[in-house]
Amino acid sequence: MNEGTAYGRPEPTYDRDLVEVGPGSPGGELLRRYWQPVARSEEATGIPARIRALGEDLILFRDRSGRPGLLYPRCCHRGTTLYYGKVEDEGIRCCYHGWLFATDGTCVDQPCEPDRGRNRERYRQPWYPVHEYNGLIFAYMGPPDRQPVFPRYDIFDDLGDDEEIVIIDHFAFGGPVEAPCNWFQTHENSMDPYHVFVLHTTLSGIQFNEALEIWPRINFRAEPWGMVAHQDRDLPDGKVLHRVTELRLPNMRVIPTPTLSVLGRTNNLSWALPIDDTHTRVYAMLRKKKDQPPQGLPVYGPGKTWFDLTEEEHQLYPGDYEAQVGQGPITLHSEERLSSTDRGVSMVRRQYREQMAIVAAGGDPAGVFFDPEEAVVSVVAGNYIVDPADLTE
Amino acid sequence: MNEGTAYGRPEPTYDRDLVEVGPGSPGGELLRRYWQPVARSEEATGIPARIRALGEDLILFRDRSGRPGLLYPRCCHRGTTLYYGKVEDEGIRCCYHGWLFATDGTCVDQPCEPDRGRNRERYRQPWYPVHEYNGLIFAYMGPPDRQPVFPRYDIFDDLGDDEEIVIIDHFAFGGPVEAPCNWFQTHENSMDPYHVFVLHTTLSGIQFNEALEIWPRINFRAEPWGMVAHQDRDLPDGKVLHRVTELRLPNMRVIPTPTLSVLGRTNNLSWALPIDDTHTRVYAMLRKKKDQPPQGLPVYGPGKTWFDLTEEEHQLYPGDYEAQVGQGPITLHSEERLSSTDRGVSMVRRQYREQMAIVAAGGDPAGVFFDPEEAVVSVVAGNYIVDPADLTE
Amino acid sequence: MNEGTAYGRPEPTYDRDLVEVGPGSPGGELLRRYWQPVARSEEATGIPARIRALGEDLILFRDRSGRPGLLYPRCCHRGTTLYYGKVEDEGIRCCYHGWLFATDGTCVDQPCEPDRGRNRERYRQPWYPVHEYNGLIFAYMGPPDRQPVFPRYDIFDDLGDDEEIVIIDHFAFGGPVEAPCNWFQTHENSMDPYHVFVLHTTLSGIQFNEALEIWPRINFRAEPWGMVAHQDRDLPDGKVLHRVTELRLPNMRVIPTPTLSVLGRTNNLSWALPIDDTHTRVYAMLRKKKDQPPQGLPVYGPGKTWFDLTEEEHQLYPGDYEAQVGQGPITLHSEERLSSTDRGVSMVRRQYREQMAIVAAGGDPAGVFFDPEEAVVSVVAGNYIVDPADLTE
Repeated sequence: MNEGTAYGRPEPTYDRDLVEVGPGSPGGELLRRYWQPVARSEEATGIPARIRALGEDLILFRDRSGRPGLLYPRCCHRGTTLYYGKVEDEGIRCCYHGWLFATDGTCVDQPCEPDRGRNRERYRQPWYPVHEYNGLIFAYMGPPDRQPVFPRYDIFDDLGDDEEIVIIDHFAFGGPVEAPCNWFQTHENSMDPYHVFVLHTTLSGIQFNEALEIWPRINFRAEPWGMVAHQDRDLPDGKVLHRVTELRLPNMRVIPTPTLSVLGRTNNLSWALPIDDTHTRVYAMLRKKKDQPPQGLPVYGPGKTWFDLTEEEHQLYPGDYEAQVGQGPITLHSEERLSSTDRGVSMVRRQYREQMAIVAAGGDPAGVFFDPEEAVVSVVAGNYIVDPADLTE
Repeated sequence: MNEGTAYGRPEPTYDRDLVEVGPGSPGGELLRRYWQPVARSEEATGIPARIRALGEDLILFRDRSGRPGLLYPRCCHRGTTLYYGKVEDEGIRCCYHGWLFATDGTCVDQPCEPDRGRNRERYRQPWYPVHEYNGLIFAYMGPPDRQPVFPRYDIFDDLGDDEEIVIIDHFAFGGPVEAPCNWFQTHENSMDPYHVFVLHTTLSGIQFNEALEIWPRINFRAEPWGMVAHQDRDLPDGKVLHRVTELRLPNMRVIPTPTLSVLGRTNNLSWALPIDDTHTRVYAMLRKKKDQPPQGLPVYGPGKTWFDLTEEEHQLYPGDYEAQVGQGPITLHSEERLSSTDRGVSMVRRQYREQMAIVAAGGDPAGVFFDPEEAVVSVVAGNYIVDPADLTE
Repeated sequence: MNEGTAYGRPEPTYDRDLVEVGPGSPGGELLRRYWQPVARSEEATGIPARIRALGEDLILFRDRSGRPGLLYPRCCHRGTTLYYGKVEDEGIRCCYHGWLFATDGTCVDQPCEPDRGRNRERYRQPWYPVHEYNGLIFAYMGPPDRQPVFPRYDIFDDLGDDEEIVIIDHFAFGGPVEAPCNWFQTHENSMDPYHVFVLHTTLSGIQFNEALEIWPRINFRAEPWGMVAHQDRDLPDGKVLHRVTELRLPNMRVIPTPTLSVLGRTNNLSWALPIDDTHTRVYAMLRKKKDQPPQGLPVYGPGKTWFDLTEEEHQLYPGDYEAQVGQGPITLHSEERLSSTDRGVSMVRRQYREQMAIVAAGGDPAGVFFDPEEAVVSVVAGNYIVDPADLTE
């Protein structure tokens, strides 16, 4: 008799806590305790833009005085969308009855009301505080009394005149900006260095650097703010490629360029922003010389960019997009059979669950700062070429 | 601490009674007590057409003898759609087994049954009575024992040889025929004259007539059949522009052309037909000289028609379509903050709720006629230029 | 007062048992007890293909040794789809971590695990047994302990050197491969010979053969394996066209070509595969001379193929596609009014319900074979020209 057929399988399920990001969900409440990137700076202009983040629809604009604003889309009066609003010096004016809202939601004009709104302080358009940093608009979408300080990221300190910081938001090295899958499955992939050996090297051809074909020694270490992975590869010349990646709670990761075009401490870090439960946008912030390209161009299989691949070439030369989106809009945890290569993934999930529990219990999660003096994120990730003797672990 | 942010908002809701139009809903039952326009006359032809009205799918055709018919789409035998039926002198023949139905649903031939259907009087295709008037097909979709007389509309009396009546069914002055939003939000906009001053004048540029930039005195008056709004504007020459609009229960409105190209009593009236809960089609019936265009051509912002505007131009020069569809497929009443400018809107809702209650209690709603002698709708709306002394109120 | 209007109709419903095909539904369990065609042979290649059958998504491929494989799409490790897998000599390798699965789901390599998977026998990719026959891939998707023998179909015995067997999978004579409707409504149409007289002859013009315009004597007979319909037409020359069609439980039917281009015993039979509850694919298997076309070309109304018809021509010259898809994604049984012409349809339903009950009670349904010696399907259908005296019934 045939065994193990697909007949009679139970209905698959996913772990809701790991994947849900909407208001009120345990994960959504954890993610809302941090400043989250919601758009590139150039998306905030005098023409209102539709933004979606953590399952919420919002309107982003920049008033004529240069201030970015992030407002709930439905006007608090009769509900017309501010997407059709008119951006002015002091804010955005609803097209329907002309109410004018500042970037903090206060109503500063009601042209059809007596005295242009003698009671207008009673009305306030729902809004979120924003912070502009290195080309990204960050928003704080959590409880107002827990708003943390926006931290300094030390790898961007002391920028030279010949340097600049750029934002790269193509998913998976040159793919679409928006990936149609849950954020957690792309995030935990950061702590799965084993797949690099298969997906990016032996199966699809060398997508990053041929040195990654060398089988590494891998270990993971928990940190108060997240976790670190070490991968050591013995190079032909007797040296060791000591590659360090880190993951910072809840949705930041620091992955030195896998093309190895940058050695030493990493020049970039990134955030996996959950657009909603089934869509993700990854923003990488990268420091570089002005006269150099960001990194090796992403090229697949027959020397094509991701967008130029035919459907069959996507099948023949899959990369991160195919592997992660290929897990479905939301991967089904009930069907997983974790193995020894999934130690990092398990640690990511354990840490995330711990932090959800802390927030649910009323506490403050790891890695948020309330004292501006302490608000520094010091990054350790990098691609290091070292002597074997210098490896302490 | 930041106040009024969008964090922690309750789930928004809408008032189901105001918006639902399907069979059995309070609003749907009220709307079904009136003759409703469901198509232009030229849509009823020898090729069956799919029609949707009040959330019901129907098939419209015109038999070879010239009679329009409106039938339930699924053949009462085995359910094939009559969209593929063959129109004949006496009705429409189902393509599957050839049953022939007259415009009143009676079955007049069953070619595969003994004696071509010796028991065919037992079968009847569900149907609705229709009435053709001035280029529109009206249907009565309510309880048969409450079917009212189709009334006369006095503004169309005594048509001269040089005159004609035309139907205009572009939403919001030149937009699409079908608007993807609930009918009630477009209907109550008729009793919101304040938005004219902003949306159609100061914000998007003058869309109708520059006289509408003058701030009006506005009042509303309830009538047994609906309500009337008066807007008085002091013109530079000492006269007053006395503009009267009316709304007739449940979904008719009489809005004199806002371009002011027609003075005196209105030459048009219109119905907001709910296609279903999230789609609306507005039919305007308009009397005019044969050698003149219906009214000033609808032109937006940079001198373009609605369809020619780019997405950004729709944002920069919004009109009724953008403001009303911009409230969403169904506006969310729980989030509204009504103000002094919403007196008319509140009256529209109150009257509609009163009529729903009357119908739910078994009564006949306002404005339906059962005696042909009394079935006259006498319209009062218009654009009147008057001496201030002649204004009685 | 008007009678029989569409006002106040009850909510329509369908008979779930007749239409549902998913795992665990009574019909789905019956259908799963038979080998079902899920693809043409040429769809199984070195590039994985997405297949959907009985509401289940699967991956079909052919390993480099020539064996077709049908696997559950999500890798049993971390759930990435095998659509991006790499086909090798021994099976298909998941793109993410390189696990290699044979066509029977066994895991034969785990490159990132110790010793390339010293515990890999613990993992098995869910799979289904397949059988390739005359150009089709059949799968057995039922309980493993009830897997029947794949039978011989006698009309394909003793193929001559100048003959071949071809697969035709266009729905309804030249339509799309996939029909957007439930399988049962297309299946029961096979036992509704009355519609031939209308749909295919008098209403749309002669679609098959003018002899079908002659009114037939029709009778139905139940058989242990399904049912047979006899249609006898008196030809002008005194002979009788004795047309025999058969339906074999649960979803096979044997319909001699209605163009009458083949006389005598049928040269073809077909299966209506439920893709899911609302999509159907019909596979016909046809024996023919190599130098002849499969049958008369399907041509509609103005001499066009189905795909070339305009929307209006589909309305004017409807065929099986329009009549069956026109019943909706799932026809609504609560609205049917069966008549004397529906005797065959009623018998189809009754037999199908009987077999569902047998399977639900733990038995084996009609027409499955467990003894290879007995596994022969002997077909009786055909277009026979006979003397009236030779008709026994």
